[in-house]
Amino acid sequence: MHKNALTDADIILHNANLLTLSDGNYGVIENGFLAMKNGKISDLGAIDETLSAFIDNTTVSTFDLQQRWISPGLIDCHTHIVFGGNRSQEFEQRLNGVSYAEIAQRGGGILSTVKSTRAATENDLYKSALKRVECLMDEGVTTIEAKSGYGLDSESELKLLRVIKQLDSTLAIDFTPTFLGAHALPPEFKNDPEGYITLICEEMLPQVKTENLANTVDAFCETIGFTRDQVKRVFEKAKELGMNVKLHAEQLSDQQGSQLAANFGALSVDHLEYISDEGIEAIAKSGTTAVLLPAAFYYLRESQLPPIEKLRAKNVPIALATDCNPGSSPCTSLLLVMNMACTLFKMTPLESWLGVTRHAAKALGEENNKGQLCKGMVADLAIWDIEHPSDVPYAFGHNPCVGVFKNGQLILDKLNQTN
Amino acid sequence: MHKNALTDADIILHNANLLTLSDGNYGVIENGFLAMKNGKISDLGAIDETLSAFIDNTTVSTFDLQQRWISPGLIDCHTHIVFGGNRSQEFEQRLNGVSYAEIAQRGGGILSTVKSTRAATENDLYKSALKRVECLMDEGVTTIEAKSGYGLDSESELKLLRVIKQLDSTLAIDFTPTFLGAHALPPEFKNDPEGYITLICEEMLPQVKTENLANTVDAFCETIGFTRDQVKRVFEKAKELGMNVKLHAEQLSDQQGSQLAANFGALSVDHLEYISDEGIEAIAKSGTTAVLLPAAFYYLRESQLPPIEKLRAKNVPIALATDCNPGSSPCTSLLLVMNMACTLFKMTPLESWLGVTRHAAKALGEENNKGQLCKGMVADLAIWDIEHPSDVPYAFGHNPCVGVFKNGQLILDKLNQTN
Repeated sequence: MHKNALTDADIILHNANLLTLSDGNYGVIENGFLAMKNGKISDLGAIDETLSAFIDNTTVSTFDLQQRWISPGLIDCHTHIVFGGNRSQEFEQRLNGVSYAEIAQRGGGILSTVKSTRAATENDLYKSALKRVECLMDEGVTTIEAKSGYGLDSESELKLLRVIKQLDSTLAIDFTPTFLGAHALPPEFKNDPEGYITLICEEMLPQVKTENLANTVDAFCETIGFTRDQVKRVFEKAKELGMNVKLHAEQLSDQQGSQLAANFGALSVDHLEYISDEGIEAIAKSGTTAVLLPAAFYYLRESQLPPIEKLRAKNVPIALATDCNPGSSPCTSLLLVMNMACTLFKMTPLESWLGVTRHAAKALGEENNKGQLCKGMVADLAIWDIEHPSDVPYAFGHNPCVGVFKNGQLILDKLNQTN
Repeated sequence: MHKNALTDADIILHNANLLTLSDGNYGVIENGFLAMKNGKISDLGAIDETLSAFIDNTTVSTFDLQQRWISPGLIDCHTHIVFGGNRSQEFEQRLNGVSYAEIAQRGGGILSTVKSTRAATENDLYKSALKRVECLMDEGVTTIEAKSGYGLDSESELKLLRVIKQLDSTLAIDFTPTFLGAHALPPEFKNDPEGYITLICEEMLPQVKTENLANTVDAFCETIGFTRDQVKRVFEKAKELGMNVKLHAEQLSDQQGSQLAANFGALSVDHLEYISDEGIEAIAKSGTTAVLLPAAFYYLRESQLPPIEKLRAKNVPIALATDCNPGSSPCTSLLLVMNMACTLFKMTPLESWLGVTRHAAKALGEENNKGQLCKGMVADLAIWDIEHPSDVPYAFGHNPCVGVFKNGQLILDKLNQTN
């Protein structure tokens, strides 16, 4: 059976350790092979003598991975990676004692990013995002979720989604666009949040749908964001249009956004430092993924930890993401996020791997296509120069990724550069 | 005057922004040039019309840096980067609830690294260190301090220092070796710390000196390390042999090690979370550099911050380093350390730059050769694809370094790879 699948393969990787993540554990197959056909994983398993002989004699393209490890391609399931401007000097001002209020008065904060984003061309936005995207690609990331939310008017929100579409079509990796019009209140609606929600529901969402720019809708439910009732209006419209929903929930306080999101069958609720027992109960029942963002926790110097133990107890799948954004997480390393999940949130190395593969796929509704090594899944693979899967989250500020396959094509090749 | 120096140069970099760090501030020269001759910086300044015309017509080798930034090469002034073994699975065990005591019983902790280091060949140690070193080199690091301290017997300590010497002689960058025999108590001296100190003073130190393997001596002064009196014995011997000293001080408690180190004119005291006002007073007077290690603070989930404000008030130069080691800081990114200094210790972006350049040079006694862009200094340069120096510590998990010169030679060249 293996042999037929192999004869027919486009490429066979062998002499590798497979980190399949398909059994709720690491799912390790030592001294294994993985065959790809038409961009999918067509077969995989341990190498025996018959297979070994086949590999020696076949005309199928083979790669000897010299005992390196193969994992599913990593998935960064929550980013705001497309934005205009640069807030590093605001960061510098704050560390030199300038108050948040004064920075806001000088035009800083999220509205400075909105201003720069509105002023930027699609090409500007594409080029600045590309530098950040390349950091993630170097680490074995093959799918990036990217949100709008720095335009906050119809034209600019659509512009952001078009840039995300362009990234998806021009780069080898996948981008999953999410519409986040309800990210912050634009200055034009300073005293009229309901009016802005109406604009989102009546104008933006139908346009996003018509132009097929995103199929998922997100919102920021928070005292400094939108109320649960306002989010509900957005979600109702999204559902009417047949779109998926997810939510920035309970980051700075418990707004019971998780329960609302669960009621709408949300793919994920994200942040969750302040989620209540009732919130956890609700998402456990709805099958919603919890997306944790330890880089934002770190950068904002938060102290309230998300309730990992309780999420575990209810078997809620936990995903991890960079939250890449200019204000609270200018982070472009998903490997560092894995370490932060272990160091700051005391998650296990296995949980950190599941968080950027299988569970991240689920947060995007892609669990049947991506995030595990098993037959029939998309052949998105990262190759690692490591001794054990725990090496990856254990160290930090390193990058042992030496190769990436996307849809069965080798798109990053440092396989012969290492020692 | 510029013109003569230019005519005579080996290489001229131009159309660059210079981050000289030579005036107590960023010392920025916009639209500048930097000339190198015989591995030193021979001239630098702002480009005027005369210079511009000269550059257009000269036969001297020139590089147009297209408005990228040049900083001094980075200096990682505190590492334990050479060691044997791999403790990632111990990390995994701890996060799965295995206690420190049980891990120690299973042979884990620092003694597992000692065991692996003793068993390793020089070639093993070289190869495993090289992977970590390459991470730092990719980020513009041109000098790495590296300590012994995982051998803990004469043969193994000397072996580590020989590996450091080999790294220095085979790689383009510099290694500054430090003898750290008094890092931990070896199992053979479990009940006889004074006996081990005697071994260090009577056997190890003279051998290190005779073989010219290090000129600086470090120790770990802590309840779980060595007492102040034991450290004093080591320092007295070091001074007798004409060697410099530095100290791991006040990391977990105030042992008044800083005062002792200051009395011996130490180059640096390192960690310092628990340094007292008297300790700060002492190092301020002795001109000792404070080396802070935010990656270890992060990885150990410490909460006691080093007293930044007080160190600033006494004008103590503050350096930053990775502390790269397998137990408390498996970190190979000095750029991440710059961000952690800002995020965790609330240091300013300027302080983070000084910490890995000028002040790091001072921690190694190299302040007259390295750490600034000015005439006569070694031509160790890092080139950055950034808009402003604050971009580097502001973001994390990124690497905007696109080129490195060491002693005037281009050793890393991604100048044409970026967008």
